[in-house]
Amino acid sequence: MNFKQLSKEELQQIYNRQKAEYDSIVSQGYKVDIARGKPCNEQLDITNEMLKLEGIENMPKSYRNYGMLDGIPEMKNLFAQILGVDAGEVIMGGSSSLNLMYDTIQRNLQFGVCGGEPWNKVGAKFLCPVPGYDRHFAICEHFGIEMINVPMDEEGPNMDLVEQLVANDESIKGMWCVPKYSNPTGITYSDRVVERLASMKTKASDFRIFWDNAYVVHDLLDETDHLANIMELCKKAGNPDRVYEFTSTSKITYAGSGVSCVAASVNNVKDILSHMTMQTISYNKVWQYIHFLYLKSVDNIKAIMAKQRAVIKPKFDAIVNAFVDNLGEDSGIATWTNPNGGYFITLKVMDNCATRVYNLCKAAGLTLTPAGAPFPYGKDVSDSVLRIAPTFTSDSDLQVATQILVCCVKLACTEKLLED
Amino acid sequence: MNFKQLSKEELQQIYNRQKAEYDSIVSQGYKVDIARGKPCNEQLDITNEMLKLEGIENMPKSYRNYGMLDGIPEMKNLFAQILGVDAGEVIMGGSSSLNLMYDTIQRNLQFGVCGGEPWNKVGAKFLCPVPGYDRHFAICEHFGIEMINVPMDEEGPNMDLVEQLVANDESIKGMWCVPKYSNPTGITYSDRVVERLASMKTKASDFRIFWDNAYVVHDLLDETDHLANIMELCKKAGNPDRVYEFTSTSKITYAGSGVSCVAASVNNVKDILSHMTMQTISYNKVWQYIHFLYLKSVDNIKAIMAKQRAVIKPKFDAIVNAFVDNLGEDSGIATWTNPNGGYFITLKVMDNCATRVYNLCKAAGLTLTPAGAPFPYGKDVSDSVLRIAPTFTSDSDLQVATQILVCCVKLACTEKLLED
Repeated sequence: MNFKQLSKEELQQIYNRQKAEYDSIVSQGYKVDIARGKPCNEQLDITNEMLKLEGIENMPKSYRNYGMLDGIPEMKNLFAQILGVDAGEVIMGGSSSLNLMYDTIQRNLQFGVCGGEPWNKVGAKFLCPVPGYDRHFAICEHFGIEMINVPMDEEGPNMDLVEQLVANDESIKGMWCVPKYSNPTGITYSDRVVERLASMKTKASDFRIFWDNAYVVHDLLDETDHLANIMELCKKAGNPDRVYEFTSTSKITYAGSGVSCVAASVNNVKDILSHMTMQTISYNKVWQYIHFLYLKSVDNIKAIMAKQRAVIKPKFDAIVNAFVDNLGEDSGIATWTNPNGGYFITLKVMDNCATRVYNLCKAAGLTLTPAGAPFPYGKDVSDSVLRIAPTFTSDSDLQVATQILVCCVKLACTEKLLED
Repeated sequence: MNFKQLSKEELQQIYNRQKAEYDSIVSQGYKVDIARGKPCNEQLDITNEMLKLEGIENMPKSYRNYGMLDGIPEMKNLFAQILGVDAGEVIMGGSSSLNLMYDTIQRNLQFGVCGGEPWNKVGAKFLCPVPGYDRHFAICEHFGIEMINVPMDEEGPNMDLVEQLVANDESIKGMWCVPKYSNPTGITYSDRVVERLASMKTKASDFRIFWDNAYVVHDLLDETDHLANIMELCKKAGNPDRVYEFTSTSKITYAGSGVSCVAASVNNVKDILSHMTMQTISYNKVWQYIHFLYLKSVDNIKAIMAKQRAVIKPKFDAIVNAFVDNLGEDSGIATWTNPNGGYFITLKVMDNCATRVYNLCKAAGLTLTPAGAPFPYGKDVSDSVLRIAPTFTSDSDLQVATQILVCCVKLACTEKLLED
């Protein structure tokens, strides 16, 4: 059934039915939250294995002391293998890759990149593929970095637009990317997009891509999406210093209590460490070693992620199936992603309806990520994008969530169609 | 024997004897390092108890997930008791209090304090009691903050000078203090000094004291030095927001792999969190809980520190005794501190001799903290202060270290006296 082809009378009937259902839902006093990409307790229970500390007696004694600013070799090697870079290109951080991103931007603003002019001096701008990760955009907004939207399509950011912008504006200093299982669309950048990002001409010689590879091993299918190796492609294209790549174990071990890293060219690594050495003596190497004991190898990480997949894939399926069953593929009022990995489903509703859906859900006890959040300054001009985070919620609550969500989508959209 | 009262001939004889001893030492090819305040393996072994994770099954499940930016209540309470503040005045950080200090200064430079003008805009200056902690000064230098030396005496920084400076210069925005077992002099600020710091009039309304209480429970004697509660005194004096207090467990549990905190008024806490929330989602709460399980209570921390004291007090004694025996209390060429706590002994040699002693030691295989390091910009105008860190080195190496050090002090000073 395509809502847009219905008569006013038919719409009014649906509206009335949905309104009655909505009122009945509200009266239940539900309280469900699918706003943030948090692992659920069953996932975190898998990580409890880590706290057995098997092999801890083999920890080199020096790891308990100051020093080794760039982290322990075991974890540098492991992250290097995951990201396809050299261990010498990896700096281990604390528990938060977001913190590494924030610090990197702060340093570049204040001190410049590799001896260049401080970004602060030139009114730095960032390209922001949209929809994207709200916390990336929040950092830019906090630092007063102007954000320029770039639409995402199935292959990644619109590269014609990106190339044109970076070629002509020297104040464009950075670009946010979540290249694999993108937050929130689930898209993985195509080889062609990655190649173009690596080889494009930029007016700013100190332009940097912030490659947030948060979901590098976070598959929802047995097969992983292929993502081209941007560090390698940048080197080939003669732009070896173009990328900072970030990742963490926040959704492999404990969320907010994992370990993180930044990978970059040796030039960039040297530049980062020259500032980082003022900031701290070393990050938590004991925790790094505990992670190494648990994670062991890339293959073992894949096995761990398979266990987590078994927990969360049904949650994604439950939502997608509910949309298929209750909205239908050609409703004309909503489409959604069915991602191969990552932590989010993007629900795209009719233009000018997302905020209404969000508010209706909220009043019915369902907390969503605020409409607009996946856009710079919280502004979704089409007001159509909603981000859904299925992982944290229990299976029974997810049923409630989808029931509320489907009802609110139908209600908001018929309401809108009746207005027009 | 007072070297300054000796004849040239007597000095020459001593010089010749020391030179011969020095040459013999050099020929041994020693390699000893007493440069940094690092705990030794025997101290760190005490902390291995922490890795038993006794009681970990009681960890609230939510600690494994994102959230609780200011840390877990158990550790906030414990630090609050140690520092004599309210738990609501504590924000837990990562593994490094230095990082919290760096971040706090960075934020104040860029965003101002509690809505005030960014410190960057006014060419912020800091007061630096000297000798002091080199990493504090390195942060200021890195950020281009002008540092003003304030001499330390037995009660702490010279308060007449401090009061005069802050009363008249609005660009003086901060002051570094290591108030207990000061790095490197071992001095604990007197009540009168702390009261004056809390109550003095400052021209800058956004002046802040960076109270690095790194050695709050790090006694070398059974009795602890009394340090007045600056947060309390600031409130009494009507300057409740004047202080950021920092501490960590780096020298209670693992160095560089402990947990840290900043304590401050509720106003300041709110201000800090408003920025910190852009930087990270949360610090490592699992590690915080593991610390809580091990540390348990203030009394238990005291018991842990007593075990550490048993390891390191003999090291301090070995050095001080060697100085007493081989230099003597009235040599005229060297005096030293005999601290009640902390991590350092300060050796004060004849003016214009510290760099020479450092270089002689280096050539003989003994690494000291560089002469000048405890001063802003690395400049000790009297070139007389050397910092000694006894804790990390094995007892046998410490014997070698003191032998080299005593020889080099005598050699450098007789050399100097012969020149004059």
